[in-house]
Amino acid sequence: MKGPIIQDIIITPIATVDPPLLNAAGLHAPYALRTIVEIVTDDNIIGISEIPGTTDTNEALEKARELIVGKDAFQLNQIRDAIESHFDEETTSERGDAPWDQRKIVHVFSAIEVACLDIQGKVLGRPVVDLLGGKRRERVPFAAYLFYKYEGAGGELAFGTDPNATGWDAARQAEAVTPQGIVEQAVAMVKEFGNKSIKLKGGAFPPVEEVAAMLALYDHFGPDVPLRLDPNAIWKLETAIEYGKKMEGILEYFEDPVRGQENMAKARKALKMPLATNMCTTSFEDIPGSIAFGSEDIILSDHHFWGGLRSSMELAKLCQTFGRKLSMHSNSHLGISLAAMVHLGAALPEIPYALDTHYPWQSEEVIAGGRMKFEEGAVLVPTGPGLGVEIDQEALKKLHENYLKCGITKRDDLVEMRKVIPDWEFKKVRW
Amino acid sequence: MKGPIIQDIIITPIATVDPPLLNAAGLHAPYALRTIVEIVTDDNIIGISEIPGTTDTNEALEKARELIVGKDAFQLNQIRDAIESHFDEETTSERGDAPWDQRKIVHVFSAIEVACLDIQGKVLGRPVVDLLGGKRRERVPFAAYLFYKYEGAGGELAFGTDPNATGWDAARQAEAVTPQGIVEQAVAMVKEFGNKSIKLKGGAFPPVEEVAAMLALYDHFGPDVPLRLDPNAIWKLETAIEYGKKMEGILEYFEDPVRGQENMAKARKALKMPLATNMCTTSFEDIPGSIAFGSEDIILSDHHFWGGLRSSMELAKLCQTFGRKLSMHSNSHLGISLAAMVHLGAALPEIPYALDTHYPWQSEEVIAGGRMKFEEGAVLVPTGPGLGVEIDQEALKKLHENYLKCGITKRDDLVEMRKVIPDWEFKKVRW
Repeated sequence: MKGPIIQDIIITPIATVDPPLLNAAGLHAPYALRTIVEIVTDDNIIGISEIPGTTDTNEALEKARELIVGKDAFQLNQIRDAIESHFDEETTSERGDAPWDQRKIVHVFSAIEVACLDIQGKVLGRPVVDLLGGKRRERVPFAAYLFYKYEGAGGELAFGTDPNATGWDAARQAEAVTPQGIVEQAVAMVKEFGNKSIKLKGGAFPPVEEVAAMLALYDHFGPDVPLRLDPNAIWKLETAIEYGKKMEGILEYFEDPVRGQENMAKARKALKMPLATNMCTTSFEDIPGSIAFGSEDIILSDHHFWGGLRSSMELAKLCQTFGRKLSMHSNSHLGISLAAMVHLGAALPEIPYALDTHYPWQSEEVIAGGRMKFEEGAVLVPTGPGLGVEIDQEALKKLHENYLKCGITKRDDLVEMRKVIPDWEFKKVRW
Repeated sequence: MKGPIIQDIIITPIATVDPPLLNAAGLHAPYALRTIVEIVTDDNIIGISEIPGTTDTNEALEKARELIVGKDAFQLNQIRDAIESHFDEETTSERGDAPWDQRKIVHVFSAIEVACLDIQGKVLGRPVVDLLGGKRRERVPFAAYLFYKYEGAGGELAFGTDPNATGWDAARQAEAVTPQGIVEQAVAMVKEFGNKSIKLKGGAFPPVEEVAAMLALYDHFGPDVPLRLDPNAIWKLETAIEYGKKMEGILEYFEDPVRGQENMAKARKALKMPLATNMCTTSFEDIPGSIAFGSEDIILSDHHFWGGLRSSMELAKLCQTFGRKLSMHSNSHLGISLAAMVHLGAALPEIPYALDTHYPWQSEEVIAGGRMKFEEGAVLVPTGPGLGVEIDQEALKKLHENYLKCGITKRDDLVEMRKVIPDWEFKKVRW
């Protein structure tokens, strides 16, 4: 079989400055971890990708090396089968109770698949979106993603701020723990990025306060800006129904108010608004339960843990088949993941809801040319071959140094939270 | 946007000699109709495909010309959307009660998609299977597909036979209306093609006779050769259960014993054998009902009416998600369709059941190099760029002349049956 044959995989853990954002599981550390993957072919084509970083995932990627070296980068089915046979999903990982996904195989395959699609695109002189059936839109819309946060810039500044910061850069560092603070954050983010819809990561404060924040956003932005709240499954069913009712007519959708498909189905029946999830239906194995219970209206996919871009297209067909809508979840990420999301977004049959992205919260970049631009909340689909973005090796080196210096090896929002509130406990269901 | 830009679509109806095969809807005419599609790009690359032929489909393809000319052959999502918006599925076609599918849009899109994938493969120097994620197997297995039949070779011979014919060629012309005749047909087909499993198209004779044929096959071939019977939904539920029980432990699967998802679900509960369908679950719109009722174990897909090869891969994921198995249905066809089926078969996650093909019943070919070879019942995946098969323009011309001469413009097995039994009536449910 002729090339492109995979010769090597370069796995580089990086850390990017991340402000002290709050969520149901605690507090973001001063650095968020990502792993940058470079797959090198015998023709010296380099395909790249980016996934959430942990030492576990990095070790699994190292183990995957022997499975993929020597393989044709077009043989994604064979690569997938090899990875699935090699790793035992049951014993090596599980999704976990946290808002972020902790399964290994899907992350590993996603990293390899996206990098291989980048290689394919480069070989063919085609953008990745063309490998997904081609572009259905020129730009992909993202929602403004608000967070409750403590004052602070993250990174070496941690809870300190840069006194010279202005505009969004200042707002990114500012405290936001009240409805007024959240509205101010929203105003600054929307001014900078032009988003047409707004999401608040909830689960950090009592429901009454978070509902007040949503009502304050509605008062400020009016009915033409769709709003969403995501308590990360930390509310009781009764709470979700009681406070959900206060937001009927206000929310575009309500994301993971409660834990588990059965509770989600009950909340969905009780409330007059669509329910979305990236916590109760997060894999193809969860789909039969989703259909049987009727647990959500919208699946927030994430190519990093649905097994790549092609699987995400399959998920889109599945959603279409069962009357579900599809949108996208995100974690803290840089431009390689953003580019992959945008290629996928451009190929999807429809984008009924603007996608999530943490991108505005990151200030660094690993791609050449610096940070990707948003116009009216949307990102233009890159037109170059493959993902259309390349690694800035100097930036990668610096971000890897961040990783080595920061000493963090896996995301643990509980540990960070206890630096502020020493007796803080994570609860799967709090209110 | 650079090429390959679609410049033209050449639509050629053809007729191929077909013997007098029986089924629930009547009798095969002396010629089976196919339509050969050639899509020509600005770089003079020609992508090809083959679909069931009717004047309706051919007219729809003509109408699709204006939708695709000028489009990049990689932009399959845009092409699909354009076809879906242009044609109104509700008013232009429906699946119909016959064993074969009569919907227009899916046929039109399949024809265009397969030809565009052939173009893509030729541009990239890659076989079509690589556009579906790559090869999971080198050869794709097919079942021996038996038919009750009257004596006759079809074509100009009609009910006559060629006295010089030997081997499978003679058996192909022989009468087979008894269990013994069916066993003899099976022996000849398996000897010629090496199939490892056997299907009988039923629905032609009373259930007691068809069950006797299956038992005769079992007696002859023993338990190591999986058997299937397909009455094309013409049995009553009680009949299916009564006679199905006589075949428990004998049948690998029972195909469409009864009509409709609800009846299929009831038969499935009553019988200890997997049920397969290409009649009650034939589109993505049918999937929610299939899941709700539990109407079958195996979906027999057909890329010609599931909307192409990529949609068939999506169907495979859907089947995997819901614990369904996937295999393939066929109609009378030539080597272009066979090549497409083989590329798809090579990419599928698994082939738990050998695929259907009518190919042994055809004696002509439209592809260069003549008829494709079977080894031990399997076809080797073509390795050339695209589908890996090319049109023999002389053969195409001759088959088009067949079409013009034979005067048949759409498949109508009832009309043919009445040439033998003048008062024969089609019944949706007969026994």
